[in-house]
Amino acid sequence: MTISNYFTQICKEVDSLLDSIIPEENTYPPDIHKSMRYSVFAGGKRLRPMLTVAVCDALKGDRHQAMTLAAALELIHTYTLIHDDLPALDNDDLRRGLPTNHIQFNESTAILTGDALLTLAFEVLADRLPKTGTDIKDILIITAETAIAIGSTGTIGGQMVDIEMEGSGPNIAAVEYIHTHKTGELIVACVRGAARLGGATKNQLESMTSYGKQIGLAFQIIDDILDLEGDEITLGKKLKSDVNKAKLTYPAIAGVKQSKEQACSLVDGSIEALSIFGTSADHLRDLAKYTLTRTF
Amino acid sequence: MTISNYFTQICKEVDSLLDSIIPEENTYPPDIHKSMRYSVFAGGKRLRPMLTVAVCDALKGDRHQAMTLAAALELIHTYTLIHDDLPALDNDDLRRGLPTNHIQFNESTAILTGDALLTLAFEVLADRLPKTGTDIKDILIITAETAIAIGSTGTIGGQMVDIEMEGSGPNIAAVEYIHTHKTGELIVACVRGAARLGGATKNQLESMTSYGKQIGLAFQIIDDILDLEGDEITLGKKLKSDVNKAKLTYPAIAGVKQSKEQACSLVDGSIEALSIFGTSADHLRDLAKYTLTRTF
Repeated sequence: MTISNYFTQICKEVDSLLDSIIPEENTYPPDIHKSMRYSVFAGGKRLRPMLTVAVCDALKGDRHQAMTLAAALELIHTYTLIHDDLPALDNDDLRRGLPTNHIQFNESTAILTGDALLTLAFEVLADRLPKTGTDIKDILIITAETAIAIGSTGTIGGQMVDIEMEGSGPNIAAVEYIHTHKTGELIVACVRGAARLGGATKNQLESMTSYGKQIGLAFQIIDDILDLEGDEITLGKKLKSDVNKAKLTYPAIAGVKQSKEQACSLVDGSIEALSIFGTSADHLRDLAKYTLTRTF
Repeated sequence: MTISNYFTQICKEVDSLLDSIIPEENTYPPDIHKSMRYSVFAGGKRLRPMLTVAVCDALKGDRHQAMTLAAALELIHTYTLIHDDLPALDNDDLRRGLPTNHIQFNESTAILTGDALLTLAFEVLADRLPKTGTDIKDILIITAETAIAIGSTGTIGGQMVDIEMEGSGPNIAAVEYIHTHKTGELIVACVRGAARLGGATKNQLESMTSYGKQIGLAFQIIDDILDLEGDEITLGKKLKSDVNKAKLTYPAIAGVKQSKEQACSLVDGSIEALSIFGTSADHLRDLAKYTLTRTF
């Protein structure tokens, strides 16, 4: 299964928006802006923008606002990758077939670039997201919820435990904490932020949250499996890096077969969570199925 | 000259607020929260909170809101120190007489702790700063202006140039860029954010901005001089670290005597910028004079 034209179009539009948001390469000081652009345009899947826009579309929200939110969340995602790849953390040299930021530039540039992308994301949320006609309180709620999702009890907490648990024995509670926090929280922030922009009722917000939680976890389990069974060239990175770092992963604890079953069951659950929505949520159903069949 | 009771009280109150904002040490995962608390409560001067609250007080704004803004800006300041001290950047082992974060914990914890403090600051701005009766648009403007001030063309840009210019020849334009961006932008953000909270007119906002720009630069010039002539024990760090790293500084280019004159003239200018304010700005005048006589 490949991604439909609908999603290809979203990726194109969000790339064009990101291009207009990040200062041009020759903006002083040029090295930080070259580096920001290098990592943001290094061939990401744009899963988070696809999700964000598709959720807002399902609720018939404002497409332009959804794109703006999507761009901010993709900046945040890129910052987490740059910092996670650093020598002091995962020490990865290759991502999506390209040198990681600290290899392409240097470590100090990579640290500052991550900082700059995170900061720019909040500028986008506070400065570009507000729009005449939107309840401005919702923008503050989206900003606050995003900050909480990616903070010390969210994404950063997940990354902290991921690093600390390297080499420890099998621990299903820890691996669930890592996955739901390191990957899941940002995906849930995409879904909830977009649902709010789309004017979701409380019930709709809960259903979307349940959808986001389940595909977030399914996505990460498949990521772990691809690290074992994927194709190095398609993935753009070395296989078995999790095994080599003795990372806690689902397949390492439950085995590949059971992990695949778990991912399937989560995808089924995520589609079930969409039952209150009509055909307007079909793209979200497709996206859920795609997480199972993706090859990179 | 020492800091008056007025400022001592602000420091006490902002510390108590920071204590309530940062998750407790045993909040999971505990190591990140221990580390966040370690650096935030490592004996900072709280210059930025003092400025923020004093500006808001001068305009008779809401004291509680000013404290909240002050806490967010101090979190941001602490994040910049942790990341600047990293081995890949300034590689400093000691700050305020204590081991820097990556020495006390480790490098990955220091990177994630900086990220977490920056993120928490935006949570505070979006979630704790809004208050019944405040124009909520002002909160978004304060958040956006803060993000711009500390972004790739602000604080981070200054830090980038600071690192890149190490060992280069005397360059007064570069040293001015570094100082106005690395230190100055955040100080101006304190002043402007607080002025907005205080309901400043356009004219008042401009005067406060001029005050902030001048004391920000004076503060940094004195910092450079203290690195040469200060007392190691009072400062809590090794002297001549700038010289040893071949950093671009004011005294390195213009000499100590001329740098002192420059700082004095900036402080005079900052006090002049306050001429439209009455006695309610006296604490700001005191703070300006204090930047010249401080010993740490």
